[in-house]
Amino acid sequence: MGFKGILSFLLLFSYVANAELFVPLPAKPPVPKDNPMTSGKVELGKKLFFDSRLSLDGTVSCNSCHNVMSSGTDNRKFSAGVGGKNGDRNSPTVWNSAFLTVQFWDGREPSLEAQAKGPLTNPIEMAMKDHDLVVSRIRMIPGYVEEFKKNFPGQKEPVVIDNVAKAIASYERTLLTPDAPYDQFLKGKKNAINAAAKRGAEKVVAIGCATCHNGPNYAGPQLPEGTGFYQRFPTFADNEYAKKYDFSADPGRMKATGKAEDKGMWRVPTWRNVAITAPYFHNGAVATLDEAVLVMAKTQLNIDLKKEDVDDIVAFLTSLTGKMPKQQMPELPQTPGSTVLLQ
Amino acid sequence: MGFKGILSFLLLFSYVANAELFVPLPAKPPVPKDNPMTSGKVELGKKLFFDSRLSLDGTVSCNSCHNVMSSGTDNRKFSAGVGGKNGDRNSPTVWNSAFLTVQFWDGREPSLEAQAKGPLTNPIEMAMKDHDLVVSRIRMIPGYVEEFKKNFPGQKEPVVIDNVAKAIASYERTLLTPDAPYDQFLKGKKNAINAAAKRGAEKVVAIGCATCHNGPNYAGPQLPEGTGFYQRFPTFADNEYAKKYDFSADPGRMKATGKAEDKGMWRVPTWRNVAITAPYFHNGAVATLDEAVLVMAKTQLNIDLKKEDVDDIVAFLTSLTGKMPKQQMPELPQTPGSTVLLQ
Repeated sequence: MGFKGILSFLLLFSYVANAELFVPLPAKPPVPKDNPMTSGKVELGKKLFFDSRLSLDGTVSCNSCHNVMSSGTDNRKFSAGVGGKNGDRNSPTVWNSAFLTVQFWDGREPSLEAQAKGPLTNPIEMAMKDHDLVVSRIRMIPGYVEEFKKNFPGQKEPVVIDNVAKAIASYERTLLTPDAPYDQFLKGKKNAINAAAKRGAEKVVAIGCATCHNGPNYAGPQLPEGTGFYQRFPTFADNEYAKKYDFSADPGRMKATGKAEDKGMWRVPTWRNVAITAPYFHNGAVATLDEAVLVMAKTQLNIDLKKEDVDDIVAFLTSLTGKMPKQQMPELPQTPGSTVLLQ
Repeated sequence: MGFKGILSFLLLFSYVANAELFVPLPAKPPVPKDNPMTSGKVELGKKLFFDSRLSLDGTVSCNSCHNVMSSGTDNRKFSAGVGGKNGDRNSPTVWNSAFLTVQFWDGREPSLEAQAKGPLTNPIEMAMKDHDLVVSRIRMIPGYVEEFKKNFPGQKEPVVIDNVAKAIASYERTLLTPDAPYDQFLKGKKNAINAAAKRGAEKVVAIGCATCHNGPNYAGPQLPEGTGFYQRFPTFADNEYAKKYDFSADPGRMKATGKAEDKGMWRVPTWRNVAITAPYFHNGAVATLDEAVLVMAKTQLNIDLKKEDVDDIVAFLTSLTGKMPKQQMPELPQTPGSTVLLQ
């Protein structure tokens, strides 16, 4: 039974399969017990997320690379950190990252809280010497000190890096994009997507893409926080795509764990908003979604897709672009008469 | 009659003088006839203002250096442009810039519209090769093309650099900070400022600071758009401050006009929100407002201020920090399936 045969066979069950594999974005993400969400913490976290004073020279905020006015990314191959330095992995979208059970491309951090601490001291990102510098700078800003006191009550010294991370993570848990056309379709609004997107939804199941890309974020099953859902990429490396885009130059999860068996293993990334997060893959080497779909079919399933299949799958993936919640800009607390950015 | 004598003499008239020299921020700024404000243009301009795709590598937006979630500046000595390059003049605040009658430190542009075009192609700012590149990139973003059509009706090709500038300027004309404590005081709320600020308000008139720093923006009289209010800085250069901070290294307005008589001439900058826009002066060389006040008194009036005078004047200047209007974040239009930032 060739690809056509498998496709016909599986299409029979695709509606059932979709119902199992694909679900609308839940209204609320998982929230860790030790960091309950409060509106105060969310507001504080929003300020910190937008505050470039958390970087060494005051030029880079979380939002610089994870732009929540846009795709939750910067749409660059690699992000630019302090001093114009470039990173070496493409910035994943912050939208719906609350549904990822591990963070970073290699899943090296088990939570949004743990993730938030990383870029602050990464020399090619926000470049702070250490977390003490982050904390001491925040302590120089009276408005922040007040807000930390209020939002972490009963703590002798509330301005500590763990609370910085908790506030940022709380804000990030509000960054959800519900009601994508395909979510609406799943909820019964049958004309929310066009015929091509409907065919695409069936094809990604039939072909096998949805074996990994399923669950609320199309990034795998909703495992417990800290438990990653990893796959090898590329699985099939002996093809023009794997060579052209040099995917294996980066050892993936092995870089984090040091274990040989983790070479080429990656956290399965989300499909939500994938249409607006070009360029693609951990190395940002692929410029368009059409090409990314061709690459994935070949490298993961050893399938050569036809143009009509690519078009349908792209139509489906595009129907996963959600609605970004309206947000008020935060007003960042000031240091009257001086600046914390002495150069 | 020494300084004390002048002070006592003038204090008698200070309330009268204040009433003439100082006025609350008007509710609306001047608007040029050829760019009437519409809510659609303001919204489009807001998007463009926050869109870093208007810079060569997608890392710098207008808001990067004129942060409207903060002081309308970046609180750096010099701003960082594309590739981590540094400018050579301190970024002035965008708040209330609608009341400046010429733009840039040297007043080289006569309007917000003309100003908005400059940083886009400045190689150490947003670094676009030319305005054609700005326009062609915007034309690649379907959502922008639609919005330009809608907001510049009847034009065969609405996506042109002049309309980009008109939209951005329209947004900037909404960036007003009314109801500073001192504005409230002027409107009759006598306890809106403390005793030190009241003394400071009298002293800046008595000493002579308000000879230049008056009008709605404390940046000089509200002249017709395009007519600048310039002063020499430093007027008195034979003192430790002028030498230490090397103010004269930059020839000021002469750089723009090429005329010898413009050497050391500068547009009088605003006092509004000055407490939150450290560091100070065109070269960002002075770290604190206290020191800036000492510097100004010495370099412009040849007066050595006492600490108590500095404290009062700083209290007054701090009472000019206004209220930033709540703003919704814009949602930037996307390019599904691809990115305009090919590296």
